[in-house]
Amino acid sequence: MYKATVNVTLRKSILDPQGKAAHHALQNLGMKEIDSVRIGKLIEMDIDAENKERAHEIAENACAQLLANEVMEDYNVTIHENSE
Amino acid sequence: MYKATVNVTLRKSILDPQGKAAHHALQNLGMKEIDSVRIGKLIEMDIDAENKERAHEIAENACAQLLANEVMEDYNVTIHENSE
Repeated sequence: MYKATVNVTLRKSILDPQGKAAHHALQNLGMKEIDSVRIGKLIEMDIDAENKERAHEIAENACAQLLANEVMEDYNVTIHENSE
Repeated sequence: MYKATVNVTLRKSILDPQGKAAHHALQNLGMKEIDSVRIGKLIEMDIDAENKERAHEIAENACAQLLANEVMEDYNVTIHENSE
């Protein structure tokens, strides 16, 4: 059993209204040192695969087919051995 | 200038309907090897601080005050030097 961690982030050229709103709220709370905020998704999956390469392939597939929108988002997949 | 990366994940005991829906959709796409999906947030901030410790403190503050809901969510903060 492997654990896949996928970071999905909006591409740099895409406006991030959720991040903008958080940034604005943080400014209002007095945190002027924060210059920009961008919010993406962190997806954790348990994958039952024979080896790490196969687990990576399954996770990539899941991203391409469903989890990420490749037009607007970048993603990267990391696979760990599941210690639990 | 430092870059803070914050992973916000739902606590294990909290039901994750978004993850459940993604898991179900992946099963329907034939990806039976995926056993569970949980979806959290990935927040990236640019922080203007004199040192790494101060940047960490600011990011922790932002999480505690606004970005994470400590009742339902766990978060962890990583600070990198901003290379850009």
